[in-house]
Amino acid sequence: MTATVHRLAGRPAPSLDPMIGITAHDMNRVNAVIIDRMQSDIPLIPELAGHLIAGGGKRLRPMLTLASAAVLDYAGTRHHRLAAAVEFIHTATLLHDDVVDGSDLRRGRRTANVIWGNPASVLVGDFLFSRSFELMVEDGSLKVLKILSNASAVIAEGEVNQLTAARRIEIGEERYLEIIGAKTAALFAAACRIAAVVAERPEREEMALDAYGRNLGIAFQLVDDAIDYVSDAGTMGKDAGDDFREGKMTLPVILAHARGDTETRKFWKDAVEGRRNGDAEFERAIELVRETRAVDDTLARARHYGQRAVDALGMFPASSAKDAMVEAVEFAVARAY
Amino acid sequence: MTATVHRLAGRPAPSLDPMIGITAHDMNRVNAVIIDRMQSDIPLIPELAGHLIAGGGKRLRPMLTLASAAVLDYAGTRHHRLAAAVEFIHTATLLHDDVVDGSDLRRGRRTANVIWGNPASVLVGDFLFSRSFELMVEDGSLKVLKILSNASAVIAEGEVNQLTAARRIEIGEERYLEIIGAKTAALFAAACRIAAVVAERPEREEMALDAYGRNLGIAFQLVDDAIDYVSDAGTMGKDAGDDFREGKMTLPVILAHARGDTETRKFWKDAVEGRRNGDAEFERAIELVRETRAVDDTLARARHYGQRAVDALGMFPASSAKDAMVEAVEFAVARAY
Repeated sequence: MTATVHRLAGRPAPSLDPMIGITAHDMNRVNAVIIDRMQSDIPLIPELAGHLIAGGGKRLRPMLTLASAAVLDYAGTRHHRLAAAVEFIHTATLLHDDVVDGSDLRRGRRTANVIWGNPASVLVGDFLFSRSFELMVEDGSLKVLKILSNASAVIAEGEVNQLTAARRIEIGEERYLEIIGAKTAALFAAACRIAAVVAERPEREEMALDAYGRNLGIAFQLVDDAIDYVSDAGTMGKDAGDDFREGKMTLPVILAHARGDTETRKFWKDAVEGRRNGDAEFERAIELVRETRAVDDTLARARHYGQRAVDALGMFPASSAKDAMVEAVEFAVARAY
Repeated sequence: MTATVHRLAGRPAPSLDPMIGITAHDMNRVNAVIIDRMQSDIPLIPELAGHLIAGGGKRLRPMLTLASAAVLDYAGTRHHRLAAAVEFIHTATLLHDDVVDGSDLRRGRRTANVIWGNPASVLVGDFLFSRSFELMVEDGSLKVLKILSNASAVIAEGEVNQLTAARRIEIGEERYLEIIGAKTAALFAAACRIAAVVAERPEREEMALDAYGRNLGIAFQLVDDAIDYVSDAGTMGKDAGDDFREGKMTLPVILAHARGDTETRKFWKDAVEGRRNGDAEFERAIELVRETRAVDDTLARARHYGQRAVDALGMFPASSAKDAMVEAVEFAVARAY
């Protein structure tokens, strides 16, 4: 099985490299802002923030701001500061997520909460979050501030929604989509949209970039959630089975449960509610999602949203930036193969 | 000993009541904004936020915004929304503080982290923080946004500073003042200052209100820290001795340690580093701060900052609002008696 989003047979596997390439110059500027603005007289702040920020992340969200600006042929520099603000929001969210989930591994490295403790992770997250607003205020666009403050509130709502959905087998696909739309896709959407605001483009271009980001974000999270049931820690830099052990109601589980017989459903209920989630049970879970094609169909859903992301770019003229954004979608949906 | 800030002998004990009185009408409007804007489709959010928000807090910070506006004779309504934003920042900070400190009691009630767990408290704090920025963006003043986003970053820095100072006997009064200036006084200062911004008053009035709030905030925290060594849980609604058990370097400890003999200093070092902090040791600590006059002099420091707060109001014409703000300072410094 291969990704089928606008890709011709025989071409090489899709990659993020074109997007990295077209944004590389701007990303140096963004990185300079990030390094500069995570400083503080309190040494623990740059130390802890730097661990995560320097820790091999792809900088995907700020990259989307830069790529969107490139698609619009934006010639200014305001997006550097705003892309850094987007990355700070994301970093703050990751710090708090790892506390909430009790995670000990991210991107193959120990998490900040394991090294410095939960209190430091909570407070440095708060600091980065405040810093991101300071960066936006310096830019001075109330419209950008509105987009990103709303995205931040939606993200937090999505995280609480996810928390209250955990360990509840009755959660279905609709609720799941609501959660990932908020906790993941809202920031992808905002990251792309703000490029149109600084470039002073018409509303329909703003909304097109918003739609691109939102659909890409959903596709991205769907694939992430599928990966938890197909790969191992070495591949992803996170502990495979984390979602399983935390009783998260992700789409592979929702589909495998819905498609299972009485005995299978009982297994999932027990697992999600925390009564059966050892290594042997995780093996069985992987088997069940394979048998019921739950992972395959999670990835099919991802391709659907990926296609919508690609089509949202239809109004923009051909450019290498646009090609790179299309290929980023193909890469996102092909990651699990 | 009595408070000596501008108060004549024979007058009744200072009270917050005048300030509550002059702001009561506006506070109803602020409360309506607070209730309205803590809502969410995710029921846990208003449930958890409401527990703390309805939990008998004095609403001191938003009250300062309203009282400052009254001193300036401001006739508009923009301060209602902004006072709610200030309270949301404060509430978010309290939620995260209780997680950081592992507190189980606040204002005499169980803390949100005890009832709903740390993850929910972290995430609902993030939500309220984002909401506060949404409120500011709706108001639309970049100057207010700058003041409050900066205050938020400073608060987070102060919290991290305090975290890294815990259990370190070598922390002195200067570092302590730096910490409380950031974690407490910055929001008091901003709460007062933004009233001058919405009232479009000259810079010097803005800075006078900032100075009032900042000095009041320092005085307030000094008294709070003194109270931990003189009173019991029933009086304050928090566990007396919390600071002691957490090894916090507050001014009563700093002074008692500095003024002690070799044996006393060893006691404090052991206590602060967590080797001696049972109930018996806390009794001894209370005795030592009394003997060394460490609490008395912490309160003397509070009166110094209280006096500065009062004098900062000197430029404003006489009014019942100004009287109420002066009496609020007297109340703050007299609380421990």
